[in-house]
Amino acid sequence: MPLPYLTQARAPLTCDIDVVNEYGEQQKVSIPAERALTVYVDKRELVTLMTLGAQPELLVLGYLRNQRLVAQASDIESITVDWDVGAAAVKTWHGIKDIEEKTAKRVVTTGCGQGSVFGGLMDEVDQIVLPADAHLTQGQLYALVNTIRLKETTYKSAGSVHACALFDVAGSEPKMLLFVEDVGRHNAIDTIAGWMWMNMAATLAPGVSGLVFYTTGRLTSEMVIKSAQMGVPMVVSRSGITQMGHQVAQAVGLCAIGRATNRRFVCYSAPQRLHLQPELAGPKLRTPAEPR
Amino acid sequence: MPLPYLTQARAPLTCDIDVVNEYGEQQKVSIPAERALTVYVDKRELVTLMTLGAQPELLVLGYLRNQRLVAQASDIESITVDWDVGAAAVKTWHGIKDIEEKTAKRVVTTGCGQGSVFGGLMDEVDQIVLPADAHLTQGQLYALVNTIRLKETTYKSAGSVHACALFDVAGSEPKMLLFVEDVGRHNAIDTIAGWMWMNMAATLAPGVSGLVFYTTGRLTSEMVIKSAQMGVPMVVSRSGITQMGHQVAQAVGLCAIGRATNRRFVCYSAPQRLHLQPELAGPKLRTPAEPR
Repeated sequence: MPLPYLTQARAPLTCDIDVVNEYGEQQKVSIPAERALTVYVDKRELVTLMTLGAQPELLVLGYLRNQRLVAQASDIESITVDWDVGAAAVKTWHGIKDIEEKTAKRVVTTGCGQGSVFGGLMDEVDQIVLPADAHLTQGQLYALVNTIRLKETTYKSAGSVHACALFDVAGSEPKMLLFVEDVGRHNAIDTIAGWMWMNMAATLAPGVSGLVFYTTGRLTSEMVIKSAQMGVPMVVSRSGITQMGHQVAQAVGLCAIGRATNRRFVCYSAPQRLHLQPELAGPKLRTPAEPR
Repeated sequence: MPLPYLTQARAPLTCDIDVVNEYGEQQKVSIPAERALTVYVDKRELVTLMTLGAQPELLVLGYLRNQRLVAQASDIESITVDWDVGAAAVKTWHGIKDIEEKTAKRVVTTGCGQGSVFGGLMDEVDQIVLPADAHLTQGQLYALVNTIRLKETTYKSAGSVHACALFDVAGSEPKMLLFVEDVGRHNAIDTIAGWMWMNMAATLAPGVSGLVFYTTGRLTSEMVIKSAQMGVPMVVSRSGITQMGHQVAQAVGLCAIGRATNRRFVCYSAPQRLHLQPELAGPKLRTPAEPR
């Protein structure tokens, strides 16, 4: 089945504005863009997403996937984004069945709600089987965090965006497959979901057992559920986890690691997937991890 | 007109879990709760909010307000929250007119989307007139940031939550009227909107000209629009601003201040509302503000 045709719409990700600082001085700072992108499916208006705009076609594809509106990428003929009018036109081959019903139930998810079909999501969680042998080593975790640290980013130049990345840890050195920034972290993970549909034949194929999802944002239930649904059995966050995120991770055996900066981290769930190498942690100069 | 009756449902805001740290040691950490709260209006299911659960009744009231589903608090007879079933039952006096139509258009707002009726929101922005003479001094700004810094919070004990606060700066010392934490910053600002409806006769009354909204989160378009709609002419963030947040703030003459920690800040818009006192900023030991 052919993959959808995607345009490559691009727009500036930052802009410079004049500000006044605490000394009363004028200065210029960069801030991230935030754009409205209205999604039309077969000419029917579906939703408006507020986004940085880095990879709008993959965002729309991943949104449709994570909202369970399309079953597979090949159901879609094309996604055409036009920033001049702030619109994404999705053309399907055979329409979306029961679209009214599928979009009727609204849930405002934590921090970054998308009006996800959350009830449905939770039902599906029980069906998820993550690859049992997928794991990462402490050394791979450190290498992965360091890769993010060295990345040139919109965050470094303008702040106020979240980053997500997808890593392949099947080899000894983690390989970054995709890096995405967006003003909303749900958008960043949806973009990764879209990329996976375009670039990986199946989420649960044997070859994908070594996937790690990285996010600068918190591991709320929504983030953990989406990761699990994409078949990614390990998530790493610079931030922490919520109680429901923790419960879901435990239920599906997903390894959730948080507070990951430099050589520090805590493993919240499925510690059997993390092969500890405490000798890499360096000297113990600190008190036990405090929340940040 | 009588104000709605609100229950006082409470539930634990944090829980302790076992984690493994980078030395392979087991330790206990606190994490914030995240609960599903399904809102029923006159027995009709409206939405499910994912929340920390600190002040669910005010959250629901503010959600209905900010979504423009009710015109005034006195349209509501009662809001009854029962955490045992994760439900908030809203009883109105006369029903909500055109509720189907009002909830039909979904927008996923940046970072913290609520499926807000964003198109409608932007139309309304043009109507907003903020009190012209409202302002704060640099000294008040510092006092306000320091008040937040000293607060005992769920964030300090468990991390992973956003905080919002509402300050009255009509006097020389800022007075904190309300402090709210939630797993989503949109929930925190909605809770403040609910509180204002219960405790302030009118948002644009002369007495409220000295209101400042504080948030730990980014100033996206949604946050700036909601602040303006509540008649709050000044916002302060520990984080930065997005391009659309900046555009809206400039359009309505709202003073947006970001990167506010210790004695540092940048003023993004309406600097005439910020009375500078650069002599309070301390010695210049740093390079110009870099994005964080």
